Amino acid sequence: MSKPRQMILNAFDMNCAGHINHGLWSHPRDRSAEFGSLDYWVNLARVAERGLFDAIFIADIAGVYDVYKGSPAPSLLTGAQVPVNDPLLVVPTMAYATQNIGFGVTVSTSYEHPYILARRLSTLDHLTGGRVGWNIVTGYVDSAARGVGRDAQIDHDTRYDIADEFLDVAYKLWETSWDDDALLVDRERRIFADPDKVRPVRHQGEHYRVDAIHMCAPSPQRTPVLFQAGSSTRGRRFAARHAECVFTFGPTPAANRSVVREIREEAVRAGRDPYDIRVIVSQSLVVGRTRKEAEEKLADYRAHASIEGALAHFSSSTGIDFAKFDLDEPIPYVKNDANNSAVEAITTRSAQVWTVRKIIDSIVLGSRVPPFVGSAEEVADHLESWVDDADVDGFNLPRTVTPECLEDFVDLVVPILQERGRFKREYAPGPLRQKLFGHPRLAAPHYGARLRDAARVADGAAARSVA
Amino acid sequence: MSKPRQMILNAFDMNCAGHINHGLWSHPRDRSAEFGSLDYWVNLARVAERGLFDAIFIADIAGVYDVYKGSPAPSLLTGAQVPVNDPLLVVPTMAYATQNIGFGVTVSTSYEHPYILARRLSTLDHLTGGRVGWNIVTGYVDSAARGVGRDAQIDHDTRYDIADEFLDVAYKLWETSWDDDALLVDRERRIFADPDKVRPVRHQGEHYRVDAIHMCAPSPQRTPVLFQAGSSTRGRRFAARHAECVFTFGPTPAANRSVVREIREEAVRAGRDPYDIRVIVSQSLVVGRTRKEAEEKLADYRAHASIEGALAHFSSSTGIDFAKFDLDEPIPYVKNDANNSAVEAITTRSAQVWTVRKIIDSIVLGSRVPPFVGSAEEVADHLESWVDDADVDGFNLPRTVTPECLEDFVDLVVPILQERGRFKREYAPGPLRQKLFGHPRLAAPHYGARLRDAARVADGAAARSVA
Repeated sequence: MSKPRQMILNAFDMNCAGHINHGLWSHPRDRSAEFGSLDYWVNLARVAERGLFDAIFIADIAGVYDVYKGSPAPSLLTGAQVPVNDPLLVVPTMAYATQNIGFGVTVSTSYEHPYILARRLSTLDHLTGGRVGWNIVTGYVDSAARGVGRDAQIDHDTRYDIADEFLDVAYKLWETSWDDDALLVDRERRIFADPDKVRPVRHQGEHYRVDAIHMCAPSPQRTPVLFQAGSSTRGRRFAARHAECVFTFGPTPAANRSVVREIREEAVRAGRDPYDIRVIVSQSLVVGRTRKEAEEKLADYRAHASIEGALAHFSSSTGIDFAKFDLDEPIPYVKNDANNSAVEAITTRSAQVWTVRKIIDSIVLGSRVPPFVGSAEEVADHLESWVDDADVDGFNLPRTVTPECLEDFVDLVVPILQERGRFKREYAPGPLRQKLFGHPRLAAPHYGARLRDAARVADGAAARSVA
Repeated sequence: MSKPRQMILNAFDMNCAGHINHGLWSHPRDRSAEFGSLDYWVNLARVAERGLFDAIFIADIAGVYDVYKGSPAPSLLTGAQVPVNDPLLVVPTMAYATQNIGFGVTVSTSYEHPYILARRLSTLDHLTGGRVGWNIVTGYVDSAARGVGRDAQIDHDTRYDIADEFLDVAYKLWETSWDDDALLVDRERRIFADPDKVRPVRHQGEHYRVDAIHMCAPSPQRTPVLFQAGSSTRGRRFAARHAECVFTFGPTPAANRSVVREIREEAVRAGRDPYDIRVIVSQSLVVGRTRKEAEEKLADYRAHASIEGALAHFSSSTGIDFAKFDLDEPIPYVKNDANNSAVEAITTRSAQVWTVRKIIDSIVLGSRVPPFVGSAEEVADHLESWVDDADVDGFNLPRTVTPECLEDFVDLVVPILQERGRFKREYAPGPLRQKLFGHPRLAAPHYGARLRDAARVADGAAARSVA
């Protein structure tokens, strides 16, 4: 019998109070309202590292949810991802306070220039000793677009075209501008860097133009580990080219099996091994020593959950203002480029006719995706079933009441998963990519690695033609 | 007799090896090549806080110096501000490791949207407990412009016009979007924020358009303490409106007296008190227990200084490629919008005819601005003369061999300045602005405060008209 497959575990968080399971900031033991304090983040990182978590994954959004009731008011009232601080700035201090855990940070390709963001992410990779992942998003809420002077978001597929070019520029800066041996810091010969091993990136595309060297010397990973969550057809094509880890949000292992298969098939079409992409599913959990304790905990938490926050969030995810419908009025299919999958989920899944009442009934803990509730053994069984039945590689665990949900998981579930051979007993050495994939840098057949290798060949050819 | 005037002291640093005194990274005791490590920054912050420094001021540039010899090669060889990492990301961890010291970080208004940067700086102000200053620059090197898709920098005065509007947007986001009592975190009533006390910023200008709420709740200072270093006519007008601290780089107290007077007069023309602006001068120091020890230290340091790095830096500052001139050939005046003052300094000061030889002769320690060298007593005398003769408020002390230069200053000079009543013996309470100016938020007659107060009046008027 082969060794059981080990799973990846990430704490799923956001630099705000209400993230996915809305309203729980109001629970007396919840500390998420302290997100403006570095102590809060350091504690989180230390607990997660005690549990050998692979990464802390930080979601982000650059605008407010204002579709529901045509106003940001419900989001503000319930603290649903607003106020929300910049996610990158909490990472270095968590890295300083830990040794091994990685950090996945969400940054959109739609609001800044790749030359500037590439530098910021390289800096983060340096400061964390190569523990950084980038969750690539293109942004979808119009409120963010209106913040940066647009009337609305650029249309969905064009955003991905722009993101493709954004990544091209980023790869060129990260992977081709500095050779590995360009930085010498040779005190004897007084040579800091070898100019012959640093070259400008010259990019002239439809959306970006760059003629500059990358401002940072090569960081441990060069390109951060690339995460992506696109579930539309275009998004999945983007993921197949760029992503090393893909997030999915499916409700059950059975329902997600085909989604995971499609992700892996798309990777193959992009010339990669189906398992070059780690598929990570979001799964909220409420765990107790016994099933009864878990159910009591759910009841306690649930008393603080916010349906209004969940509706505000889901209205922006779908682009549908649910306040406009009577409780039992069928919600018609609305073509929404911004977030196809969420709309399809409520309008086409199981050919079920959705109403606001049904949506509300599906909200167990301030989110339309219910938590799995059970004893530590049952939670471990459930996670195993995701791996075995749906072929996923691991989990983003959204917080409920924090940090106790993480402490509970680390204390109760991690030892069981380790006992069953499903989770590591110590960190692998090296940068985040090495821990996850066995090599610190992008490797062929990844698109970015091929782009890098092609540039090297071209560079060699140019050098030969000069010689 | 009145109490002697106390001085502000900032450590002047940059997220790179060679900052101002080029080449010193090659000194065996210099640690600046470790700028990619958080331990390096934490140590720096702790030493500076031990010396009760007001702030660590971090310069930045988003491009490489490539005017000298028409190439980035001299800068790369000598590590002259390249590679250079993002300055913001090292700040939170330094704040985590300290209690009181402030941080001035340099960010250009030319490479990103104010809606995005305002959020990042608010986050930093939250995480540091209100210890953040923003050194506003507009960028001047063409290499940075070419990184973000332009052929060259936008012309000097237009950059400042854009920066003026950038600041308008930033003030609106920081000062007017959220009322002080908007964030409730009321667990009992389950109200996170009061929507009636959060309003969108609606800005429609020549360069920016915004229709969005600020994504962050009010931080301790709201607007970070504003630093600026513009010395052109347009730059000084900008400073008079926005800056709370202005940097100057003059060579001697006598030569700088008129510069300081003009800064204060410009402040008065902008409706402010002349001393509402703290004038901070950059002054490199080499200090010893005795004058002899200081001179020996200078000789030791100087053996590692780089004339080539200084020329690369100064060529980009002036826009003049000094490699194009014979050693004794007069350097003609070149009108250079990008950095008027630096060019004027070498072409018009003292009506002296400059040559490359004269420039090289003026480079004592890898910079065209020489260090002051002396015993601790003499250094203290010199700093006092700056305050008394040139009417400056304090100093940015560029590093030489780091961190020993800072340790030397803290151990040898700070006690003397304290003894003479010229430097504080403990930190004042509160955020950085409160420590420097006695109040944590922008106060009238500052332009940003007037803009805020006008918005409040308008808001009140609108509320009354609705009622």
